[in-house]
Parts: sequence; C-alpha cells; structure tokens
Amino acid sequence: MKEFDVIVIGGGPAGYNSAEYAARHGLSVLLAEKGKLGGTCLNVGCIPTKALLYAAKMYHYANGAGEPYGVTAGQAVFSHSRAVEKKNEVVKTLVQGVASGLRRCGVQVEEGEAAVSRKDGKLLVTVGEKTYAGKNLILAAGSFPSVPPIEGVREGMASGEVMTSNEILDLEEVPEKLVIVGGGVIGFEMAAYFREAGSQVTVIEMLDKVLGANDREVSALLQKEMEKKGVVFHLSSSVTKIADGVVTFQKDGQEDSVAYDKVLMCVGRRPNTQIPGLEELGVRLDRGAVVTDEYMRTNVANVYAIGDINGKVMLAHVGYREGEAAVNHILGKKDPMCYDAICGIVYTSPEAAFVGLSEEQAKAAGLSYQIKKVSINFSGRHVAEDGMSSGICKLIIDTKKDVIVGAALMSSYASEYVYSLALMIQNKIPTEAVLRTVFPHPTVCEIIREALLS
Amino acid sequence: MKEFDVIVIGGGPAGYNSAEYAARHGLSVLLAEKGKLGGTCLNVGCIPTKALLYAAKMYHYANGAGEPYGVTAGQAVFSHSRAVEKKNEVVKTLVQGVASGLRRCGVQVEEGEAAVSRKDGKLLVTVGEKTYAGKNLILAAGSFPSVPPIEGVREGMASGEVMTSNEILDLEEVPEKLVIVGGGVIGFEMAAYFREAGSQVTVIEMLDKVLGANDREVSALLQKEMEKKGVVFHLSSSVTKIADGVVTFQKDGQEDSVAYDKVLMCVGRRPNTQIPGLEELGVRLDRGAVVTDEYMRTNVANVYAIGDINGKVMLAHVGYREGEAAVNHILGKKDPMCYDAICGIVYTSPEAAFVGLSEEQAKAAGLSYQIKKVSINFSGRHVAEDGMSSGICKLIIDTKKDVIVGAALMSSYASEYVYSLALMIQNKIPTEAVLRTVFPHPTVCEIIREALLS
Repeated sequence: MKEFDVIVIGGGPAGYNSAEYAARHGLSVLLAEKGKLGGTCLNVGCIPTKALLYAAKMYHYANGAGEPYGVTAGQAVFSHSRAVEKKNEVVKTLVQGVASGLRRCGVQVEEGEAAVSRKDGKLLVTVGEKTYAGKNLILAAGSFPSVPPIEGVREGMASGEVMTSNEILDLEEVPEKLVIVGGGVIGFEMAAYFREAGSQVTVIEMLDKVLGANDREVSALLQKEMEKKGVVFHLSSSVTKIADGVVTFQKDGQEDSVAYDKVLMCVGRRPNTQIPGLEELGVRLDRGAVVTDEYMRTNVANVYAIGDINGKVMLAHVGYREGEAAVNHILGKKDPMCYDAICGIVYTSPEAAFVGLSEEQAKAAGLSYQIKKVSINFSGRHVAEDGMSSGICKLIIDTKKDVIVGAALMSSYASEYVYSLALMIQNKIPTEAVLRTVFPHPTVCEIIREALLS
Repeated sequence: MKEFDVIVIGGGPAGYNSAEYAARHGLSVLLAEKGKLGGTCLNVGCIPTKALLYAAKMYHYANGAGEPYGVTAGQAVFSHSRAVEKKNEVVKTLVQGVASGLRRCGVQVEEGEAAVSRKDGKLLVTVGEKTYAGKNLILAAGSFPSVPPIEGVREGMASGEVMTSNEILDLEEVPEKLVIVGGGVIGFEMAAYFREAGSQVTVIEMLDKVLGANDREVSALLQKEMEKKGVVFHLSSSVTKIADGVVTFQKDGQEDSVAYDKVLMCVGRRPNTQIPGLEELGVRLDRGAVVTDEYMRTNVANVYAIGDINGKVMLAHVGYREGEAAVNHILGKKDPMCYDAICGIVYTSPEAAFVGLSEEQAKAAGLSYQIKKVSINFSGRHVAEDGMSSGICKLIIDTKKDVIVGAALMSSYASEYVYSLALMIQNKIPTEAVLRTVFPHPTVCEIIREALLS
C-alpha cells in the first residue's frame, strides 16, 4: 500500500491549495474529490457569481450608464441564458486550471468519495476500490447550503420552485418574481444580479440588518443602494411557509406575504462532515464543525481540518491560508493561522468590502477606538467616474496602538483596494507610516488617506 | 503688514494640500494662485484625462464588450464634445471642492501672480497691490509642458494645429489624423483616448521604448495592446519638422513622415520657476528646477519647494506628500521625504501600474534581486471578467532582505491595487509576512500572491 506524506480530502480552494503547497514543498500528496475539482467556490460559489455579476455590470454599462459621458446606445438586451453559458465557460477554464496546476505539482488526484479509517496505527483513506496510507490527513470537505425545516420547503425543492445557491446559478430563465430567504452576502449578491436581469426581487431576512455580521452602517448604506434599484427588503422577518406561489412570513408579530415564481434559500452554510469513518476516527466536532487549533490540528494526531469544514470563517481565501498553516505545521514550520485581517467583499455596484473588526466588534471587545470616516466623494477619481454619489470609507482605529484594526468600505474598486487595509491591520503598520506611504492620485483608494487625515 | 506662518505660492495639489495641512496643524496660511485652484492636475492633467478615459471605457463597454456576457446593444455612438462637457463638470466640482476645503481650514486665498522679496530679513510676498510677510515660504508653482524648438512648431501652435496637453483637452472635434510627439505616460493616455474616440493615432517617440523610464517589459506589453487597437508607434524617432499637414521624422538614419490634422506635443514638462523675485532671493536652481533636500528645504532659510517645481518626480501625489514633509519640518517634526515607493499609473484599458524600482533600475543599482512574474490569467477574477488575455504581475525582490523593492503590473484594477505593493515596499514587509496576510478571493490583486509563490 502506497503511503503518502499527505492525503487531502476535498478539492475545493482549501484542499487544492494545500495539496499544491505541500507538493511544492517536496511532500508526496494524494487528493481525493468526490464532486468537481474547485469545490463550491469555483463551481457554484465565488467564481460563477462573479461572472454573472460582471455580466450584470456590462448590461448596466450598455444600458445608459455611459450617457453622461457622451455614449449613446440603443436599448440593450440582456440574455440571462447567454450569461450562464459564459459563466460555465469561465468555470470550465478555471477548473481545468486547477487540474493542471495539481498535475504540474505532482499531486495524485483520485475521483470518488473518500472514507477514512485507521489500521495498525496508520491513517488510511479508501477511494473506490483503492486504499492509501497517509502520514497526515487534511480534511477539506467544505460545506453545503443549509435548508431550514420551513413548511413547504421540501416540496418546493422537489418541484424546483425552491432552490439553494447551488441550483439557481443554472436557472434557464429569469424568474419574474424571485423571493430570497436570507439577506447575507450570498443572498444579497443574487438579489443584485437577478434585479439587474429583470426580476422583481424581495429579500426576507431574519436579523434586523443585511450582510450578516458586517458593519451595520455600511450594510444599511448598501441596502439603500439596492432599494434604489428596486429590491424590496423585509428585515426582522421569519419565513413560516412557502407554498402555492406565496412566501408567508412574520414581522413584528404580524403575518405578511409575498408572491413568488422561484424562492432562493440563502440562510447560511453548514460544514460538510459527512466523511465515512470520521466519527470512528474520533475527530471531535462542535456544533457540526470539526474543532481545530491555530495550526489547524484536530484532536486526532496528524489529522488537520481546513476551510469551511472547521466552520471558522467560511471564505475561500481563509481556506487557502489555513491550508498553508496546516502544511507548514506538517513541515515543522511555526505558522499559526491569524484571523485578524480577513476581507469580506460584496460584488455589487457599488461594491462593499469589510476587513478586520467592525465597529460593533470593537465596542464589544472593549477596545479604545476611534472612528474615522469620510464620504467617497472626497476621491477625485470617484467623482470623475461616478459623479457625486453615495459611498463611504470608515476606519476603526485602536487609539492606544495607533493602528487600524478594521475598515468598512462602499465604493467602486473596494474589492481591490481593501487588501491594502488588510496589510495595514495584519502588519500593524502605524497610521503615521501609512500616511508616509504615498497614495497614488487619482485613485479611489486615496480615500483611506482622506479618512486618516479627517 | 500681516505676517503669516506660511505663505504658499501655487494652488495645485502640492500647494493646496500643504496649505490645508499647515492650517490643520494650527498655522496661519496664505495661498496665492495666479491661475486656477487645483493647478495642472485638476484643470488640465490627472482629473480631466481620467474623466475622458473613463468616457472612452464606457464607450468600449457599450460597443460590444458585453456581448460575450449576453449583452446585446445597438451600435453605440460617442460624442466627444459631450465627454468634454462632462469632463468640465467634473473639473468644476472638484475645483470648488478645493476652494471650500481651503476655506474650511481657514486658509486665506489670494488670486493673482505672486512676487517674492526680502526686506529687513523678512520674506515678503506681493499679490497685486497687497504685500504679506511670511515666516516660511513654500514654492509650489508647478510646471508647464515643454515645447521643443522643432521647425514649424511655433507656427503650428499659433494656428492651433499643434497643441500641448493643456489645449487638447478642450478640442471640440476629434481629429481624423492625430500625431502625438512623445510616447510617455501623457502621450500614451491621450493616444488611447483619441483612438477610442475615432482618430487615427500615430505616436512618435525619441527613445526606444514608450512610457519613459517605467519597466521595459510591461511598457512593451502595453504598447502591443494599443497596437491591437490600431495605434501606430514609431520608436527611436526624432521629429524634425511639422508643417503643411505632415510630421517629418528621422528613424534609423532614414527620413519618414506621417500626415496630421492635429499634432499633440507631449515631450515632457518643465518646472515653473518664473516667479518674480525668485532669482533675487538667491534660490538655487539646477537644470531649471529648484534644488531641495529631503525636507524640501531650498538653500534659502525658511524657503521650501514642493511638487513639480523641484523637478524630482512630477506627479501630483508626490507633491502632496512633499508638502506634508515641508510643513512637518516647519512644525519641527522630523519627516524626511522618501521616494522608494512612488506609484505611477497608466489609465488605459487594461491599466498599467509601476511602483518602486524597475528591473533596469535594480540591475543598475547592483542589487541582488530576483524577478517573480506570472500571467494575469492566474487570477480567477481576471478570467471571469476579461477572459484569457494579456497581462502580467512582475515583482522585483531584494533577495538579501527578502522584501519587494519594485513591481510592474498590467491588468484591470492595477491602479487600485498597486498601493498594496507601495505599502509592502515602503514598510519593508517581508514576503513571508505578505503571504500571511490573507488575499481576498476572487480578486485581481491575488496575483501578487501567485507571483510570490511562483
């Protein structure tokens, strides 16, 4: 029986990146994937949604957005099915890229469900007929959309009227009336896409705010932008029934309802711990997630858990990094995982981005902090491209250490300049040193400077 | 006679920012501007060109760019004159913003040409009928386009056939045949705009490369992109005559020529030291620029020179920062100017951005360096939005210190994520620490991670 240095279960971002990283560092690696390489992110998550949102942006641009700049175009027409085709092409290209990346590094890939076990003290992984031994095991099986036990949901999913984010990406036609249950990032982005594509969109959210735990002020600002585009939001509302073309929900003790053609369930994701043999191996779970320490070790020696399966921060890029931390531990290199400067992005127009602590978290942590915030209209590039319009740069500054500990942004390009804030937070660059690092002009990222000087 | 703590001559980015910065720190400030507040940058430089280039981008988007994403639009029409109107609106908004920013800070603004002198040991500035004393004087008079003594240029400028970057921004009609003399950043951006707007564009450059001293490889790549769009380049070519609708130039000892309707002269800019009294004050110049040290001090006590007038790096954002360094010196705070991580951006589609050392500069400096470079197609977001296409992320790494010392980029969003590289360079963040700072996915800026891991 061949023994690998590392066996990775799951070929999503956490899995394929850790496999490549291990192989590049000289380890022999087997990766088992029962679905498609690329996992949720590439196949039904980050990438396909971004391709669709970009299509929506192109439609917006073709549809009068250029008029103030002297561009006159005829009535533009949007083909959702063509956008989905393009999305599929993009996914195919990138999945092939992952496969060839793994091949180039010498990672052996096995397709099929992996079962784990232990024999004579050795960790074993069985895929189909074959069994392999591994000195180390990395669990990276990802997550799946939660489906709450709401009346009518099971029947709706069977009939195709109710979907999760997995299915909606391949919807052939734009629904006239789309109800989205859950106003977190995924639900919010899908609302933005389908609204632009022509749906009447209603979002029903249980919390009193959209976008989950992200900064309340910026979340509300982005909600307003979506409302301007015609998306209807019901906050603090619990869905009680989905049937006969009507979603029923409770709001402030009152019952209300909204008609639908399709319903998208976006109420969160759950770690996928359905790996045969996992329980027998003795891997400890907590609330459905595999428990790990900062080196991504589980309670079982030589077994690591990275990405959504550990339930810490369910984002592809966190999985990437956790994979590196795990492999570095295997290599004997101290590289603890740090969650202080994780970016979260909403790819709407305008975009929103968050990193580090929110104002609410800073307050809850009892930090001495100061808020510095300015309107995005202090950016010359913003005014040149978007005119005077809504947007914000909000920084949370630890007043004792004089470092930025969090930021919330709403503006064009926020997705791309938020990383500079991650660098400041993670590397504890004093605000004085940030201001000495010359911001290029004219950019939208200069708004960080304006906020610091305000 | 009223004595100010600081008198600033020039209301461009260097001038207005230093005036605001000084006023915010409690100093009394007078600012004199003989033209328009905002200087070259706001009125005839960075901002108006970016507004026009954004208009060109909108036209490109409306004109079939969305087709692969399912967007069908009729033939789009571009109105250059409407784009110019929009540009003028943007400029007006931002110039008003500068004026109100100065007012809010309590800076006294005087319109008119400023003359400098000294009496009884005091620095004096006269604007019109009024004379003011200043404890400190900050020279921020900017620069103007060079006009080389080529045969026919003077006559061409008189007739309006030959222009500098000042005049071309208000051209009412798109010339059929535009010849641009000088392929530096300004000439290059104007070539991109007028090509998109419909001109036949020819660029004639004296050096054997475009984009000045910026990285040779990326400069050549961007040139290729412009050639695909139909811009014609003649490198290593010297213009000898401009007359009768024909630009004549020498290339490899051969004479060649190209027909024009308009000629744009973009052969560089010269510091504006035409301040009455400057020579008498004894301020030392070198090759037409005011000489300063790292605190922006001239050889004359209490006289500083910031922005283009000192000829160091003629970029608005450098002027901003130099102004802060000068004011901090006045305030008794040690804050020397550092030019190690200055970004330079080309706002074409795709964009290019440069920061820190180029490969050529690293080599010339005798540095132990390593180049890490990857195709932009390693970015999932890039592939989702632009398909597999040309683009690059090139990093120059000091192998002794394991820090990035330079970067050259060609991709969408390069303008906005290049600042993260400036932060790494300026703050000497080790590449290991960069890799531990989680890059958000999917973004184009992740390409930095891919390059580092390559």
